[in-house]
Amino acid sequence: MPVDQSKKYWVGFDLGGTKMLATVFDEKFKPVARKRRKTKGAEGANAGLERIIRTIDEALEIAQLSPAQVGGIGIGLPGPLDLDQGIIIESANLGWENFKLKQELERRYKCPAALANDVDAGTFGEYRFGSGKGGRCVLGVFPGTGIGGGLIYEGKIFRGKTTSCMEFGHMMVEPKGKLCGCGRRGCLETVASRLAIAAEVAMAAYRGEAPFIMEHAGTDLSEIRSSVLAEAISSGEKAVEKIVRNAARRIGDATANVCNLIAPDVVVLGGGLVEALSGIFLDEVHAAINKRVMDSLVGSITVTVASLGDDAGVMGAAALIADQVEGVRKGG
Amino acid sequence: MPVDQSKKYWVGFDLGGTKMLATVFDEKFKPVARKRRKTKGAEGANAGLERIIRTIDEALEIAQLSPAQVGGIGIGLPGPLDLDQGIIIESANLGWENFKLKQELERRYKCPAALANDVDAGTFGEYRFGSGKGGRCVLGVFPGTGIGGGLIYEGKIFRGKTTSCMEFGHMMVEPKGKLCGCGRRGCLETVASRLAIAAEVAMAAYRGEAPFIMEHAGTDLSEIRSSVLAEAISSGEKAVEKIVRNAARRIGDATANVCNLIAPDVVVLGGGLVEALSGIFLDEVHAAINKRVMDSLVGSITVTVASLGDDAGVMGAAALIADQVEGVRKGG
Repeated sequence: MPVDQSKKYWVGFDLGGTKMLATVFDEKFKPVARKRRKTKGAEGANAGLERIIRTIDEALEIAQLSPAQVGGIGIGLPGPLDLDQGIIIESANLGWENFKLKQELERRYKCPAALANDVDAGTFGEYRFGSGKGGRCVLGVFPGTGIGGGLIYEGKIFRGKTTSCMEFGHMMVEPKGKLCGCGRRGCLETVASRLAIAAEVAMAAYRGEAPFIMEHAGTDLSEIRSSVLAEAISSGEKAVEKIVRNAARRIGDATANVCNLIAPDVVVLGGGLVEALSGIFLDEVHAAINKRVMDSLVGSITVTVASLGDDAGVMGAAALIADQVEGVRKGG
Repeated sequence: MPVDQSKKYWVGFDLGGTKMLATVFDEKFKPVARKRRKTKGAEGANAGLERIIRTIDEALEIAQLSPAQVGGIGIGLPGPLDLDQGIIIESANLGWENFKLKQELERRYKCPAALANDVDAGTFGEYRFGSGKGGRCVLGVFPGTGIGGGLIYEGKIFRGKTTSCMEFGHMMVEPKGKLCGCGRRGCLETVASRLAIAAEVAMAAYRGEAPFIMEHAGTDLSEIRSSVLAEAISSGEKAVEKIVRNAARRIGDATANVCNLIAPDVVVLGGGLVEALSGIFLDEVHAAINKRVMDSLVGSITVTVASLGDDAGVMGAAALIADQVEGVRKGG
C-alpha cells in the first residue's frame, strides 16, 4: 500500500531521566497526539526500549495513525551520544551504555530516526517554533538542576564531530572552586545551578535567615525546588532573593562571555529555574550582557524566555528529523 | 579582451596597524609576488587607500599581471567591520572610521573584494593551507599584544550577523580584574596578553628578579617583546618563565572552556607570543585542555602551532575571496 505523501507525520520524543514524552505532529508541526510514561531507566536499556515503543505506539493509536504514516522519529535525550550512529554512549541519567537506539527504532518503525542532545533539541524547538524563531544564531541557556546550553547556527544545531557540544554549565568560572558532577572543579554548575542555589539556600535556612524555606522545604536540597524558591522570594525572603540573583548574575556573566565569542542575535533562557523565576533571570542576564559585551555587539542581542515549555524538546526533535528526511529527499 | 579563465589570480592583503602586505596568488594559491609597505594609518583613510592601491599595483607589476587577471581581492584587517558591506566601521589601530574599503577596491580593480577580521583571515589561512588543514571545526587562538580568536566551522568563518566575533581575549576571567583596553574589567587580555606579561615582567625586573630583562629591555613595556621574553627564559630567568607559564595556563583554561562549548577538532595556536615561545604555550594549553575538557571530548582535540606565520593572513584572505567568487560562479 503506497504511503500517502500528503499525510506525512513526525514523531518527536523526549527521553528524560524521570519521564518520557512522545508527541505526534502533522506536516505543519501541529501536535495531533501525545503520550507520557515514566522512564524507569534503572530497569535497563531493553526494558526502556520496550517502554519507548509502547509510548510511541500508544501516541500513534490516539492519533489513529499506522507506523507507515510516520516520516521519521526524532529523539532528544541526555548524552553523551554518537549523533551520526545514533548510539547512547553513556547516560548517567538513564544508566544505559552503548545502546543503539536509532537502529532499534528504525528497525521497529521502518522509517529514519535521529538522536539529539536534549538541550539541543529544546533549543532547536525554540528556534523553529518559539522564542528564538528564525534567528540566524540562537543561543539556548537552560539552568535547572544542571545548566545546559544549545546553539543553532544558520539553521542547524552546532555540534561536535560525533557528539553534541555547548557544555555551558561546565565552563570553568572558579579555578579553585567546588567539585562538579563532571569530576572537575569550579564549573558554572557548581555556583549557579538549581542544586548550587539549593545548597546555599539550605545553609541560609539552617542559620535561620530563610524561615519561609525552612517551613516549606526544610534543609533537604531535593525539596528546595525552583517553585519554592520563587514562592520564598514572593513572600519577601531577602536572603533567598540575594542568592538567586547572584546565581543569575553568574549565568549572565557566562552568557556574556559566550556572546562575545559567537555573537548570537537571540539568547533564549529556559529550564526549571527560569520558568519559576523568569523576571530575575531576564534582569540579570540582560544586565550582564549590557555590561560585558563588546561595543560592536551592543544592541544586537535579544534576550528572551523560552515559550514552549516541555514541548520545545519534542517539537525540536520532530523538526530535526523532518529536516533530515526532507533534506535527503531534496538531495536525492 | 577576454580574460583567460585558466589564469585566474587572487590578491590577499593584510592591513596591519604598522605594516601592510599584498601577495598575489595563482589559482593553486602559490604566491607569485608580494609587496610590503608601512601602513601610516595616522595619515588618514584616503592616504591609506592610496598606499593600499600602490602596494597591490606593485605586487601585480612584480608578477607581470594586469588587474584584469585578478579574480578577487581579500583583505584581512582589525575591526570592527561591516562584513557584508565591506566597511571599516572603526579601527583603533588605523584610526579610520566608516570607510568603504570594499567598494573603493572594487571600483579601482573591477573585481570582487571582501573584508575579513585579521584573526579570522589568519585562522582561515591555517585551516586551508596550514596546521589546521581540513579540520571540521578549527579554533584559532592568537596571543600577542592582544589575544585574538577565530573559528572555522564546516568550511566557513564563523561570524556574527554583520560583524566578526570570537572575541577570545575579551572573555571575562576576573570579575574585579584590571581595566582592559575595551573599557571593561578582567578580560583575559588583562592577565595573559603580551602586554600583561610585559607589565608583570617589568615589575619583576624593577624588583631585581629578572636581571636579563633589566639588561636587555629595561622596564619599558614596549621593549619587553616576545623575543626578549624567550631569550630571558633560555638564559635561565626563572621569574620570567613563571610569569609566562602562568599566562599560558590562563590562555589554556580559556581555550578549554571554549573547547567545551564548540568541540573543535583542531586548536591552532599562533601570534607573536606563540611564535617566540611555542614550547611553553603548547605545553600549558595541552595540559589545560586535558585537565578541563569533558570526558566525551578527551582525545578528540589536536593542539598545534600555526605554520604559516605572516602568510596565514594573506593566504586566508585570498582563499576567502576565491571561495566567494567560485561559490557565486557555481551558484550562477
